[in-house]
Amino acid sequence: MSFMKLSAEVLKITAGGKRIAIISEETANSLGVHSSDRIRIIYASQEMIAITNIASHFPRNQIGFYEEISSTLGLKGGETIVVEHAELPESIAHVRAKVSGKRLREKEIKKIVEDVVERHLSDVEIAAFLTALHIYGLSLGENEALSKAMVQTGKTLDFGQTPILDKHSIGGIPGDKTSILVVPIIAAAGFTIPKTSSRAVTSPAGTADRFETLCPVKLSMQEIKRVVEKTNGCLVWGGALDLAPADDLFIQVEYPLGIDPLLLPSILSKKKAIGATHVVIDIPTGRGAKIKDLAEAYSLASDFVDLGKRLQMNIQCALTYGEQPLGFAVGPALEAKEALSTIMGKGPADLKEKAITLAGMLFEMVGLKDGRQKAQDILQSGKAEKKLREIIKEQGGKSNVKPDEVVLGDKIASIRAKQSGRVSWISTESIAHIAKVAGAPKAKGAGVVLTKKLGENVKENAILLEIYAERNNKLTTALELAKKLQPIVLSKKIRDQILIDKIPEKFSAEKPFMLER
Amino acid sequence: MSFMKLSAEVLKITAGGKRIAIISEETANSLGVHSSDRIRIIYASQEMIAITNIASHFPRNQIGFYEEISSTLGLKGGETIVVEHAELPESIAHVRAKVSGKRLREKEIKKIVEDVVERHLSDVEIAAFLTALHIYGLSLGENEALSKAMVQTGKTLDFGQTPILDKHSIGGIPGDKTSILVVPIIAAAGFTIPKTSSRAVTSPAGTADRFETLCPVKLSMQEIKRVVEKTNGCLVWGGALDLAPADDLFIQVEYPLGIDPLLLPSILSKKKAIGATHVVIDIPTGRGAKIKDLAEAYSLASDFVDLGKRLQMNIQCALTYGEQPLGFAVGPALEAKEALSTIMGKGPADLKEKAITLAGMLFEMVGLKDGRQKAQDILQSGKAEKKLREIIKEQGGKSNVKPDEVVLGDKIASIRAKQSGRVSWISTESIAHIAKVAGAPKAKGAGVVLTKKLGENVKENAILLEIYAERNNKLTTALELAKKLQPIVLSKKIRDQILIDKIPEKFSAEKPFMLER
Repeated sequence: MSFMKLSAEVLKITAGGKRIAIISEETANSLGVHSSDRIRIIYASQEMIAITNIASHFPRNQIGFYEEISSTLGLKGGETIVVEHAELPESIAHVRAKVSGKRLREKEIKKIVEDVVERHLSDVEIAAFLTALHIYGLSLGENEALSKAMVQTGKTLDFGQTPILDKHSIGGIPGDKTSILVVPIIAAAGFTIPKTSSRAVTSPAGTADRFETLCPVKLSMQEIKRVVEKTNGCLVWGGALDLAPADDLFIQVEYPLGIDPLLLPSILSKKKAIGATHVVIDIPTGRGAKIKDLAEAYSLASDFVDLGKRLQMNIQCALTYGEQPLGFAVGPALEAKEALSTIMGKGPADLKEKAITLAGMLFEMVGLKDGRQKAQDILQSGKAEKKLREIIKEQGGKSNVKPDEVVLGDKIASIRAKQSGRVSWISTESIAHIAKVAGAPKAKGAGVVLTKKLGENVKENAILLEIYAERNNKLTTALELAKKLQPIVLSKKIRDQILIDKIPEKFSAEKPFMLER
Repeated sequence: MSFMKLSAEVLKITAGGKRIAIISEETANSLGVHSSDRIRIIYASQEMIAITNIASHFPRNQIGFYEEISSTLGLKGGETIVVEHAELPESIAHVRAKVSGKRLREKEIKKIVEDVVERHLSDVEIAAFLTALHIYGLSLGENEALSKAMVQTGKTLDFGQTPILDKHSIGGIPGDKTSILVVPIIAAAGFTIPKTSSRAVTSPAGTADRFETLCPVKLSMQEIKRVVEKTNGCLVWGGALDLAPADDLFIQVEYPLGIDPLLLPSILSKKKAIGATHVVIDIPTGRGAKIKDLAEAYSLASDFVDLGKRLQMNIQCALTYGEQPLGFAVGPALEAKEALSTIMGKGPADLKEKAITLAGMLFEMVGLKDGRQKAQDILQSGKAEKKLREIIKEQGGKSNVKPDEVVLGDKIASIRAKQSGRVSWISTESIAHIAKVAGAPKAKGAGVVLTKKLGENVKENAILLEIYAERNNKLTTALELAKKLQPIVLSKKIRDQILIDKIPEKFSAEKPFMLER
């Protein structure tokens, strides 16, 4: 076999978890290696496969290693490394097959997911795979194989009991703080609901960001089991638990491409990994949501239900109102405060309604009758509040936290109505954008609070929305943006209603890509 | 606007020409930046956009730069850099549009190609673009726009005259040394044929590799013009001339994915860049070639002709015999020797026939009658040999070089026939593989020489093929491979003819991907 001896050059940075080696063009020619080919690295009695990056002007007798390789092999620099051309991972054949349109079999998909998690595939190969999935779509069998492989290549949580209930929203409307009510309602009724959530990817707040303003969310598996044991529920961050780790790796490549072909396996693999048996999936549908129309919503919902069956999970979907933000508050702390107020009896009607509806669906899935009524009773009786406070306490927070004690941004500005009128349009996209520019979710106290919802009347000069920020420069920029975007449209005259917008369109990269889990 | 000040950390390696900056996860969060987002780097009075790589465990107050950025900004390390989130390049919107199936307009494609050449697009984005093109196919308009953009973003050669003739093969069969005859035949008749060629990408020899064994091929634009001025022709390496530079950048991403969606614009942009007006495209068709059947060949040929019209080039395609290697020799020096012998009057009939056929087609394209006969006369009269020697001399080689003077590998082994019989099958794939393992094209003297072609009779123990190498270990490995692959199949009995192969198949990554220009 043709091999070479090269001197190790150690780079002090990581390569995103991938095993990448850098060689000169000359070395590449000698080895018969082209861009992204694999090479076998042999040092002491260790051997590993690396992805090749060919760099012009790289010293011809050297091989450069990022930290993943140098730390594993214990290299300091200068060691002699034996290098030879290596075969490609088997999964690349399957990626190519998918690109050419072939429907993949379970073991082929499993190999791809394993190699993604092991970092054996380059970003180019993963990008081609995801682009192909996006264009061709996935069959139910492929979705099932992906979900199973994503569960199997990560850790799982076993609570040692059934049923395990869960709730998830595909996202799309800002302010969707429903989980903070649903979890206590379900837990108060004696059912186990160990909710793991993500941080926001492209939105102003994810469930983990919201709940973190009330108590810690970064719990270990042991701690989570303890909390659930004691209270029946939890609201924790799933990110460090290594559940379906392939998901984050796929998202890193999906994000720059603005595609989301793995929506179903991404969501259901995480549910399966925590042993969920009954899951309600919220699909906000409407002008302001990810899913714009009912046809698309029904199609997605039935895909969820079918995939759930294949994974031995009972899934029900709720198509919910997606024309405007949920509640009035958008931003981690603002939303946590609103959720807390609502569970205590004083909150927006739409938030309350959505919470008891989704909780009610879960109740009926496990055999109770009049689920919505039961949920409403638990909420109104104060049992849900009591349970929420237990969960907060067990997760390490202050159980008697009051809404006013939630720390909000102290730099506040408002937009006022230029005329009186009825709210005819709220741009959820713009509201989310303003909240983010104000600093959400990183600045937990930042965000936006609406004062009126669709259809409500507004007086001239009344406050339309308030912007909260933790820093003055962010407040200023958010305010400017809000004035430019005009996210809330009032109408009195027919003239204002008829012309929605004029073309040419802004080019589409300006439209934010909604990627949420 | 939200910005940060970070300390520059200079990495001593390049990032494949891309402007990449490395930041910590924390810095990314503060800036609101996700993987592959863009950031604006400001230092002294300079500003540039960089692609973000987010690295775990990277110092939070630092920003890491590869050489492309640090050398342009003149950084040594430790300088304070101002960093802010930047808008995405406009071309990303167009890439996403293509991924979603939209047919792109000329200016959108132009922007993508410009950003590829400027290294503003990440490999993930280019991979998604190419995968989408592969899956959807390209319209004639898209092919035209790509070809034009690829020409416009590079240099062009202007010989100040017309017509400019050219020949190109899409490749696929080993041993295709035809250009070494066609160019002198055309030039001898007084027509200008400034042939630029590539080195081999996946094959054992490219035209540039072959001709380099006779004389230098790495000429500058000035030198090329001089050679063409004096002799009407040349056979040079196009790689350093910056003609259609986007092509190599696309190929680097196509190669690991095993796809070739840009075959047409890749070839025709290079022809257009040298001002070609009349081009004959050789499309080897057959079991051993890239194009397996006539339907595919006709389809490709008419695409070439149509695209040529859009680019104001007169294109004719020749569907040529693709069942076995052309001539007997495979490997740079071996093929150059065979071409030289043939132009001197002693060479394989198939090589001679193909050369005069293609040259004849070019003659008829510029208005001559009986093109093939004219080409044959030029060859037989010795005028083609004389012209070849002029070209060799003007390019800096020895004009009176003899076939025996071409330096071949001196380590030689042969495979002999185990039985007598008729040659019923020659695996072009295996022949190419053996030649490469023997060292071609890097080891110019390495390769394979067949002794018999399809349909010819072979006696028991006669030499079937010879392997040439420059190093013993390569010879040994190539010989082992040849014994294992059995590239030449003899048949006497019907039994040997009927069963071609048994399944299961080897998995497809083992099949070599043919990418040639």
